[in-house]
Amino acid sequence: MDNRPIGVFDSGMGGLTTVRELRKQLPGEDIIYFGDTGRVPYGTKSRQTLMKYARQDIRFLLQFDPKAIVVACNSADTVRAAVAPEFDVPILGVVESAARAAAAATVSGKIGLIATETTIRSGVYEPILQALRPDAVLKKQACPLFVPLVENGRTEPGDPVLELVVEEYLSPLRDWNCDTLILGCTHYPLLSQVIGNFMGKTTKLINSGAEAAESLVRYLESEDLLSAPAHRGEYRYYVSDAPDSFAGLAKGFLGRELDGTVEQVEIGQF
Amino acid sequence: MDNRPIGVFDSGMGGLTTVRELRKQLPGEDIIYFGDTGRVPYGTKSRQTLMKYARQDIRFLLQFDPKAIVVACNSADTVRAAVAPEFDVPILGVVESAARAAAAATVSGKIGLIATETTIRSGVYEPILQALRPDAVLKKQACPLFVPLVENGRTEPGDPVLELVVEEYLSPLRDWNCDTLILGCTHYPLLSQVIGNFMGKTTKLINSGAEAAESLVRYLESEDLLSAPAHRGEYRYYVSDAPDSFAGLAKGFLGRELDGTVEQVEIGQF
Repeated sequence: MDNRPIGVFDSGMGGLTTVRELRKQLPGEDIIYFGDTGRVPYGTKSRQTLMKYARQDIRFLLQFDPKAIVVACNSADTVRAAVAPEFDVPILGVVESAARAAAAATVSGKIGLIATETTIRSGVYEPILQALRPDAVLKKQACPLFVPLVENGRTEPGDPVLELVVEEYLSPLRDWNCDTLILGCTHYPLLSQVIGNFMGKTTKLINSGAEAAESLVRYLESEDLLSAPAHRGEYRYYVSDAPDSFAGLAKGFLGRELDGTVEQVEIGQF
Repeated sequence: MDNRPIGVFDSGMGGLTTVRELRKQLPGEDIIYFGDTGRVPYGTKSRQTLMKYARQDIRFLLQFDPKAIVVACNSADTVRAAVAPEFDVPILGVVESAARAAAAATVSGKIGLIATETTIRSGVYEPILQALRPDAVLKKQACPLFVPLVENGRTEPGDPVLELVVEEYLSPLRDWNCDTLILGCTHYPLLSQVIGNFMGKTTKLINSGAEAAESLVRYLESEDLLSAPAHRGEYRYYVSDAPDSFAGLAKGFLGRELDGTVEQVEIGQF
């Protein structure tokens, strides 16, 4: 047993959808969350810059002696393989978990992937899917307006701008008849309803944040790293921009009121 | 006469619309541009974070011994009054120039302002307009999806998503019949045609970047700081994210191919 916390980081708010799943599955675990709200978004930044930011985010979390770190951002996770070996802590990501779930879920072998420009361009999903399901075909679509829409609270069915953007981005995937669609950005679960309505019931949506939470549960169980049964999880949130607006916005991602302290970090110093 | 360069900074690409006007009006001036592409956008960040970033951006530009600095970003310009007195260089902004132009242009006294959340919330335009035109009434509209749309190259009339967003944001201003509309973000000149079509010919659009360029011309003339007549302007561009994508995107903002070096800066160290 291990009562040390789990570290989670993201470009801003999106990673809270992973925290939501972690809390559901592991209510006894302490979680330290870092959201890089002063430099958000990550999905438009270069690989080189993402490597620098990911290193800083990990160094910040290491201060809390975490038993594991979750990269709860697909864009940041595109550099995990390059950065993680530099650190002496298990670092799990969202991409591999989502790819595994998609490979297991697809029947027809037609898998759709929607994500930020950075994630799509990186090609990070292809080798994992290829190894797991060599017969599968991946069709990708960058959805650069989804993050701004979600961050502006435009997530509800019936929002005319959102519906129009969804139709533009997802029509090629729907017409192609993929049976599995990877939501390759931790903001996108907030659009599940609109995306699900558009794609239809026969398309299975893969929530990358939720899949990462499940992978972490399996990892902690297999390594006997779960917290003691009597331990009650506590939550601390850190952000790189002013903390005041964080709590209000967090609710939509977390599915509940924020219960835990929110503090500001000078992330550039790490 | 003074052959030292003019420094210009912005959150990313938008300030290039100011550079475009500066080059038109002052072809003999050297310009050093810094775009904070590693931390873009500014329009969603807090006042405290913008103060930190503006100070770093100014400190970086000071290395080139500029004769003046232009804050070519309305969001950053909301903290200029607080930050500029710390530095021993003239620092001009886009807000005051745009407010002056709007006060001079309006006949009915009904002025519209569209800008980022940060600029709208700051209330930076009100006291300037109040002082210049006490009879004028300002109606404000935050347009948080305009910057992502522009940065995704969605600026052309006929783009269904853009047209729908324009209708949503601008209908209240059109119905109110403002005769002057301040484009309070240096990204928005790329939307001039769509906005102009929607608002109609009777609404005068104020381009905050162009107005700032004119203010700078007047300032340099009055202080005898223009470069020597034989001097031919040179351009150097610096960015905080990888420079490779900058040149391609810059064209739309600059109205021409980028002619000048582009280098990456570690802005966090300033």
